[in-house]
Amino acid sequence: MAMRRFMDRDFLLTTKTAKEIYRKGAEKTPIFDWHCHLSAKEIYENKRPKDITELWLSSDHYKWRMMRSCGVGEMFITGKKSSHDKFMAYAKSLPKCIGNPLYTWTHLELQRYFNIETPLSEKTAEEIYKRCNEQIRTGDFRPQALIQKSNVTCVCTTDDPADDLTYHELLAKEADFSCKVLPAFRADKAIHIESSTFIPWVAAMEKAVRREIHTFADLKTALLERLDYFCKHGACACDQSVLYVPYRVAPQEKIEKIFKKGLSGAYISLEEIEEYITAMLLFLGEAYAKRNMVMELHIGPMRNNNSRMFARLGADAGFDSIGDRNIAEGLSRYLNALEEKNSLPKTVLFALNPKDNYVIGSMLGNFQSGEAASKIQFGSAWWFNDNYDGMRAQMKALANLGSLGCFIGMVTDSRSFLSYPRHEYFRRILCELLGEFVEEGKYPYDVETLSKMVEDISYNNALAYFGLEIQP
Amino acid sequence: MAMRRFMDRDFLLTTKTAKEIYRKGAEKTPIFDWHCHLSAKEIYENKRPKDITELWLSSDHYKWRMMRSCGVGEMFITGKKSSHDKFMAYAKSLPKCIGNPLYTWTHLELQRYFNIETPLSEKTAEEIYKRCNEQIRTGDFRPQALIQKSNVTCVCTTDDPADDLTYHELLAKEADFSCKVLPAFRADKAIHIESSTFIPWVAAMEKAVRREIHTFADLKTALLERLDYFCKHGACACDQSVLYVPYRVAPQEKIEKIFKKGLSGAYISLEEIEEYITAMLLFLGEAYAKRNMVMELHIGPMRNNNSRMFARLGADAGFDSIGDRNIAEGLSRYLNALEEKNSLPKTVLFALNPKDNYVIGSMLGNFQSGEAASKIQFGSAWWFNDNYDGMRAQMKALANLGSLGCFIGMVTDSRSFLSYPRHEYFRRILCELLGEFVEEGKYPYDVETLSKMVEDISYNNALAYFGLEIQP
Amino acid sequence: MAMRRFMDRDFLLTTKTAKEIYRKGAEKTPIFDWHCHLSAKEIYENKRPKDITELWLSSDHYKWRMMRSCGVGEMFITGKKSSHDKFMAYAKSLPKCIGNPLYTWTHLELQRYFNIETPLSEKTAEEIYKRCNEQIRTGDFRPQALIQKSNVTCVCTTDDPADDLTYHELLAKEADFSCKVLPAFRADKAIHIESSTFIPWVAAMEKAVRREIHTFADLKTALLERLDYFCKHGACACDQSVLYVPYRVAPQEKIEKIFKKGLSGAYISLEEIEEYITAMLLFLGEAYAKRNMVMELHIGPMRNNNSRMFARLGADAGFDSIGDRNIAEGLSRYLNALEEKNSLPKTVLFALNPKDNYVIGSMLGNFQSGEAASKIQFGSAWWFNDNYDGMRAQMKALANLGSLGCFIGMVTDSRSFLSYPRHEYFRRILCELLGEFVEEGKYPYDVETLSKMVEDISYNNALAYFGLEIQP
Repeated sequence: MAMRRFMDRDFLLTTKTAKEIYRKGAEKTPIFDWHCHLSAKEIYENKRPKDITELWLSSDHYKWRMMRSCGVGEMFITGKKSSHDKFMAYAKSLPKCIGNPLYTWTHLELQRYFNIETPLSEKTAEEIYKRCNEQIRTGDFRPQALIQKSNVTCVCTTDDPADDLTYHELLAKEADFSCKVLPAFRADKAIHIESSTFIPWVAAMEKAVRREIHTFADLKTALLERLDYFCKHGACACDQSVLYVPYRVAPQEKIEKIFKKGLSGAYISLEEIEEYITAMLLFLGEAYAKRNMVMELHIGPMRNNNSRMFARLGADAGFDSIGDRNIAEGLSRYLNALEEKNSLPKTVLFALNPKDNYVIGSMLGNFQSGEAASKIQFGSAWWFNDNYDGMRAQMKALANLGSLGCFIGMVTDSRSFLSYPRHEYFRRILCELLGEFVEEGKYPYDVETLSKMVEDISYNNALAYFGLEIQP
Repeated sequence: MAMRRFMDRDFLLTTKTAKEIYRKGAEKTPIFDWHCHLSAKEIYENKRPKDITELWLSSDHYKWRMMRSCGVGEMFITGKKSSHDKFMAYAKSLPKCIGNPLYTWTHLELQRYFNIETPLSEKTAEEIYKRCNEQIRTGDFRPQALIQKSNVTCVCTTDDPADDLTYHELLAKEADFSCKVLPAFRADKAIHIESSTFIPWVAAMEKAVRREIHTFADLKTALLERLDYFCKHGACACDQSVLYVPYRVAPQEKIEKIFKKGLSGAYISLEEIEEYITAMLLFLGEAYAKRNMVMELHIGPMRNNNSRMFARLGADAGFDSIGDRNIAEGLSRYLNALEEKNSLPKTVLFALNPKDNYVIGSMLGNFQSGEAASKIQFGSAWWFNDNYDGMRAQMKALANLGSLGCFIGMVTDSRSFLSYPRHEYFRRILCELLGEFVEEGKYPYDVETLSKMVEDISYNNALAYFGLEIQP
Repeated sequence: MAMRRFMDRDFLLTTKTAKEIYRKGAEKTPIFDWHCHLSAKEIYENKRPKDITELWLSSDHYKWRMMRSCGVGEMFITGKKSSHDKFMAYAKSLPKCIGNPLYTWTHLELQRYFNIETPLSEKTAEEIYKRCNEQIRTGDFRPQALIQKSNVTCVCTTDDPADDLTYHELLAKEADFSCKVLPAFRADKAIHIESSTFIPWVAAMEKAVRREIHTFADLKTALLERLDYFCKHGACACDQSVLYVPYRVAPQEKIEKIFKKGLSGAYISLEEIEEYITAMLLFLGEAYAKRNMVMELHIGPMRNNNSRMFARLGADAGFDSIGDRNIAEGLSRYLNALEEKNSLPKTVLFALNPKDNYVIGSMLGNFQSGEAASKIQFGSAWWFNDNYDGMRAQMKALANLGSLGCFIGMVTDSRSFLSYPRHEYFRRILCELLGEFVEEGKYPYDVETLSKMVEDISYNNALAYFGLEIQP
């Protein structure tokens, strides 16, 4: 085996087939990033970044976490050290993270956005810091430019039901910006009745619908109103993050009582929390189905594990990890309850714990139907699984248990405007995998069929699934 | 690496060693399919199939599930569409299922039974449909012919204790049919005291033993009588499917009370269900040990998840998936309780959830003994794991944790008379894996030892384990 | 691909890079075995073994277990058969264990300590038995010689808090023996309040501190005293084995009551056990942090599953297996409770169930900080995972989720003086993995950086982490 060059043109394209189908089906195919955490406001305001440190390190908790792993002090991460020193600390840590997706992402971003092929390390850091900053000064590294340069035709952000969607409205009117920016309805705060965020969130909802919310019934009406508002703004997706999906049905009167407790800040038992979540998720699922929206369930995160750092930095600062609840039975019963009422929406199941890959992969089949190609989807390898091994594991589980050809593919799930090469990374891995199937004699060498499959998984399937039409 | 031909003679035999040991140890070795769902009645009646659609698609819920995954409507699956249209719908879906075992199985079956080498797709479907049907019309595709053509010397079906085994008796007298068809004792309905199947099943048992069953003690006596009846008909295996193995011991009087509740259709608590199952499984395990029968525990299926489709199509229609209970402690205590009384039968542990591979693989070692080579066996990759990756994962777990050389190998677990190439698939994967060990310097290049090992795992080990003698 | 020779010089070094970095970074690098079960007494007494059977088979429950898997009777394992016959039984079983780490370990040990390159099997057993015994008779196979020959500079044994550390003291004074032998504080018996070992253990502690222990407070004082005693003897590590880490906080008065129950042998509920364990683990963690000791949590073993054999042979006889509790939430809360009080020690998390690899791998990141390079470590693949696949899985999980370059590497966790080649095995696998990253274009071909990384993971990182300085 000849030594391969570091992340060159044929990176991961280990077979003839892989190379061919990547060129034909993936290389020029646009991106539909149907789940991300970009800020519509930031896209609209379209500010020029100060330097590479701001662009890379000011809000990316993946990078923060990696630096902490290498023993870098918080001063160099979220603290007061200079842009230069933070960048140096990152560069010094990176080579220790061999095999980490950040290693690949970092270099994909340097290559694609800065034309820098040099590996980043302590030795090369000063030079790369200079070259990046010079390009940022002289070129256009504003959000809209980065999105367009990345060949993105549509992104779905993720937004609270109480959000007024001002920036989505403004963006829709931008003539120069060709990428659609659609909101997605994320009712996370609606289910966390036990959280300190609940009462303020209900207040925000009251403001959004311009009337008071006293009962669970009131809240449901308000949510439907907001959902229709989101639909008017082009929303086709609804997100929900859960540690697990409980299924504990209680009578509506009991749910009303629990809601009252939540609203008054009273103690709510675990049983009541599960009853409330069940009622809310059943209500939302049905509402999504009625509007032909896609429900995305992100299952498994255990958030804000470090109280001291949470108090200091808040959420999404790199202190989350993978939960390990048993998810099969609750999830099955929940989906079945919707299905029984003919109210199961198109649903994407994301698994954070790879032990759930086969549970999810086999769960899909319980609820497929003639309504859509893979009406129930297995969400792409996500967060802690968004790496070479994780993507292969998710796609292999899906291939073994369902129909890989109907997969709606990759999302960045990112807060960064430089994260689109993750789609390229995914597509290379996809092509490598399909190429292997051919090489191993498991699938015929049929470049036409395979290239089409790559293009579909990379782009077309998702457009069709979400019901969008975008002119090339 | 040269491009390999699609599923040719050397399919999966990626090393010189693999090719050699496959030729010597596997290619001509007969099949003992010690766990399947074939119907003795169908084998005995030996009807000629109408067409390829009947043979392939009329009862195979794996294929139904795959079609639903591709968005095919139920009309084309279990509905009223013509044989032709159903076949076309299957053919059109198949290429999207790259990496799915159905893709491989389909082509193995076309190759081995129909001499068709062309990959099935929308384009080739008409031609293949014609060629298959012509062969079915002119050749012998009846069950007995298919079984004999597949070099099967013995199959164990799976039968309810109340079954009268008429067709097993009739088959035993068939002079022309060389394959043994042995019943296996499957007491699934005996443990599901909470199910609507329980009362009718007890009634069937009453009919089978020609007396009334009023107590748990009565039921146990009846089960022993049936078990001896099965033994007289050559049964050497007993199956049990469980989501998990509980271990909650209660006094016999309590079990009697629970049994009475079950028989009267009264509500039974989860605790009582677990107590009843524990008592029944302890009783059965001991009875099996006394008769030197093999106990097969199939752990993990979550069945009939889709109520609407269950009401329409019944069980085994493609709406099952993988459960994720914690299984280690209950299973360990159950096996230990039998072991303590010197009543632990030879036991095969099947894991449906791959997260359990290492739990099961290490559980074996707790209860091995000088009574048999691997008295406790790790059942081959099963159902949702019956694919390339699943078989490798199961064999690697077994190799790492136990003795792969003592493995009793593959079963089809199938309802289809065309499913024997799954043994070939398994054997190719086995030879590939052993060949890799040699290629990677982990095992000496000793073709004699390895070929013998392949033959043993493919056939001899299982015969010895089940105590059968079959003349070649 | 050319056929490789069985376990030759380049065993597992499948790429040019792997070979280079193994030669430069691993081959001559010493061993720091920071967690093992060697007996300081045996090292000090330094007895000559009788024969290869004593050396290999008299106390290695891995080998016993493997023989039982192959159906070998207990007479040949722990029974009265002769050394010769036991060795023959082992040799006959071994070839069936293709893919098992014992297959590799056995031959590494034959090669490195006996210069025997012949694969062990029934055919070669007599010859190998003779050659080994002759070398044992004529050469030096005493513990100290084996340790020094293996280039070990330091080992940490694992010792009960009540242990007087006599032999550690004596060893420290041995001028001729260059390897440090440090005790580690293993308070396992302190948490198993429900076990029959608890009362005798408290009595042993009373003896060790020369006063009575009546209360939980007394016990804590006694433990601190012993901990300081261990520190004086150079201890830098503390071990704890748990099926899972509960987190159930109760007031100190309740803990005192539970302790009294434990001491009187009264029944203790599951809830109380969890409360007691939580209190004890919080206390110990804080005490370790204060002394800058490393806490090792070994999570997941389910011990002594076979009551009959436990009654006959006691613990550690090969009847343990992998548990499957949900561990994420309890562990997170426990570590967070320490972190909140600024009392989280450096911690190594070992996972016995591979389903926990991603839970543990992502848990690390919740509690990293500037105090150390990877203050929270993912312990190397352990016990049932201590094999080729397990080591790769652990290192890949760590690489994907954290910083592989900061990993403190391998431990033998062994009772055998011949087990050091497991470090060699680990290093070869490490180099193979790093070489693959280069070969696959995922990391630059930078032999200097990579060789340094190999040396660090093999040795330097652990020395720095445990705060030891050892002159080369």
